[in-house]
Amino acid sequence: MKFIEGGVCAAKGYKASGVHCGIRKNKTKKDLALIVSDVPASAAGVYTLNLVKGAPILVTKKNIENGIAQAVICNSGNANTCNADGIEIAEGMCALVEKHTGIKANDVIVASTGVIGQPLSLEPIAGGMEELVSSLNYNGSDDAAQGIMTTDTTKKEIAVEFELSGKTCRIGGIAKGSGMIHPNMATMLVFVTTDAAISPEMLNKALQADVQTSFNMISVDGDTSTNDTLTVMANGLAGNDEITEANADYEIFTQALAMVTRTLCRAIAKDGEGATKLLECRVNGAKNWETARTVAKSVICSSLFKAAMFGADANWGRVLCAIGYSGADVDVTKIDVTFESKAGSITVCVDGAGVPFSEEEAKKILTEDEIIIAIELKSGEVSATAWGCDLTYDYVKINGDYRT
Amino acid sequence: MKFIEGGVCAAKGYKASGVHCGIRKNKTKKDLALIVSDVPASAAGVYTLNLVKGAPILVTKKNIENGIAQAVICNSGNANTCNADGIEIAEGMCALVEKHTGIKANDVIVASTGVIGQPLSLEPIAGGMEELVSSLNYNGSDDAAQGIMTTDTTKKEIAVEFELSGKTCRIGGIAKGSGMIHPNMATMLVFVTTDAAISPEMLNKALQADVQTSFNMISVDGDTSTNDTLTVMANGLAGNDEITEANADYEIFTQALAMVTRTLCRAIAKDGEGATKLLECRVNGAKNWETARTVAKSVICSSLFKAAMFGADANWGRVLCAIGYSGADVDVTKIDVTFESKAGSITVCVDGAGVPFSEEEAKKILTEDEIIIAIELKSGEVSATAWGCDLTYDYVKINGDYRT
Repeated sequence: MKFIEGGVCAAKGYKASGVHCGIRKNKTKKDLALIVSDVPASAAGVYTLNLVKGAPILVTKKNIENGIAQAVICNSGNANTCNADGIEIAEGMCALVEKHTGIKANDVIVASTGVIGQPLSLEPIAGGMEELVSSLNYNGSDDAAQGIMTTDTTKKEIAVEFELSGKTCRIGGIAKGSGMIHPNMATMLVFVTTDAAISPEMLNKALQADVQTSFNMISVDGDTSTNDTLTVMANGLAGNDEITEANADYEIFTQALAMVTRTLCRAIAKDGEGATKLLECRVNGAKNWETARTVAKSVICSSLFKAAMFGADANWGRVLCAIGYSGADVDVTKIDVTFESKAGSITVCVDGAGVPFSEEEAKKILTEDEIIIAIELKSGEVSATAWGCDLTYDYVKINGDYRT
Repeated sequence: MKFIEGGVCAAKGYKASGVHCGIRKNKTKKDLALIVSDVPASAAGVYTLNLVKGAPILVTKKNIENGIAQAVICNSGNANTCNADGIEIAEGMCALVEKHTGIKANDVIVASTGVIGQPLSLEPIAGGMEELVSSLNYNGSDDAAQGIMTTDTTKKEIAVEFELSGKTCRIGGIAKGSGMIHPNMATMLVFVTTDAAISPEMLNKALQADVQTSFNMISVDGDTSTNDTLTVMANGLAGNDEITEANADYEIFTQALAMVTRTLCRAIAKDGEGATKLLECRVNGAKNWETARTVAKSVICSSLFKAAMFGADANWGRVLCAIGYSGADVDVTKIDVTFESKAGSITVCVDGAGVPFSEEEAKKILTEDEIIIAIELKSGEVSATAWGCDLTYDYVKINGDYRT
């Protein structure tokens, strides 16, 4: 299993494109993306649990209810959420795909991201469709990844190659993250494609299991978006024996899927709004998964700890504090805390109490841009990892005036 | 019932003082406070639910288990939490009060606030006791209020006067807040005194009920402190008939208590670390209290919404988003949202969808320093109010380098 280039177009039979159609004012920013499979594909999705749901989510759910999809259309700059005509607009986007590609409207995954509560007009999208469709190509992942970005500073794409029943398979994806990132049973916008042959049922099973340890373990700001969507299409063009049960091939497929989703998770956390650092909290020695994940996420979500990391301040008391209020049932007198980075590793707390350490050494470690917070609970065998980012001036700046 | 001067010394028979003893490096900042009652008083307390608890909390709980206390000693600059010798130090502080005042060590409420996980030495406290005790006086509330401040920019004190069984009674308090403010069943440091006669049982009952709608409804940063403590002492010197049951006097007492606690809540929220604005979220029309409080707190806690308020940006989509992920069971298609301040009032969302409004007018309203977010759920008769503050550059600045 290895990482390869190509993102969402790495797998056989997927074309993509991205254009600026005019939803965003800045003409240098793409705001419309399209991904199509040469043939209909197995499809599965997970969505936000926010009660306020973007209209595109309702339409996408309906369209892939039968486990089949062939295209993804996504705009940035407007979330099409809390709008009276939201469903109509989202369905209109699917109809435009059918008109310009022949792919059936109810085989289209539709998504929107951007400001909530501002009417979205079909006009710019209709005007951009011809360019969008004519520029579809097998190396179009970059363009599509750009088309779904909002305040993201880097595009996020990844792909891996692996083998199933003697056939080379690929799975790749693109994502957008940045702010309002605290997925619950779902995620921000992530589109994954694979040429592996897998039934809709098994694809759905793999996806539901994966998000528990991938996207549900990241947080930028504790705000669960209204539009979180993660979909996977599997078109079977790799020619492997179709996966229809939890066999050895299914295991390999889930590992490949995890390589893709975890890489995108780290990319989303590291590019959190205003972030300067990726924080990775690794919890070991928990008595069960619930405890491990609760502790890891609580630390990653603490505004105080995030601000301390921005300042490269080894304020481990905030780690203990966040564990203590997490709701997890832990023995606080057993907790060890270690900070790690490329620059080294330093243990700051043993058995719930501070130990002497070099502030200078700690500062050096925490000045790096990828920090690991290793927490040992010494109460069992279960581990969990969560990803987040520091809290910075720029987060406040970006969100103090997002709409204008 | 009216507001009066005097803070924690407004009620009869309470002296207070505050000095700089050397725990904090800055000599202009007081770091040790003492409050004493002339006679033993009924006492009740509520404390953090964080599993990591400051050592002083454990000692205070033990000391007022019998419902009696006569003094409060509190230091700032060090939380005496996650220290191996924490209990010993907290008990040492009580012993110092006994040594210098004659009040029994086990009638002392002890509290600490500041950095977690740094050993606290008794030395500076012992050295400061003589000055602390000799400066005790019936107008000492100011000094004590200063002695418990950390990153607070304003001291917080309040008192009210009311009548019980023909006798004038008073109740007053001081508080410290600022960061790590997200109380759960308890609060930051708040010390309340009254000269009303009330049994320990009824005092405890009044306090437990009060915090549900006062301190448990504020949040600065979502971080529940390890040291949250709220205590009330009632020394009975007003001479009213002792309250021993839930009668009319008890109702008056709880109203007076609420006037004190709500004022301190607003003061703590408004002086949240880095805050420029007080946010008050009023939820009406909920089907039950749990729904009302969950919605109000979710809005107040949203980093995205808090940042929007800093920027005076009427980004109401973030209000809907925060309601949607709150976990409260609400009908999102019925929600109205109105922003209010001294400068006016503007409705931005009706029945869960945006309505046209003047951005200019909204900006004017949101530029004020006290903002009300009025949410109408149209599903019942229950209301709740929560208090918070905006998220600013200064919050990041203060917490990026708190320890140095």
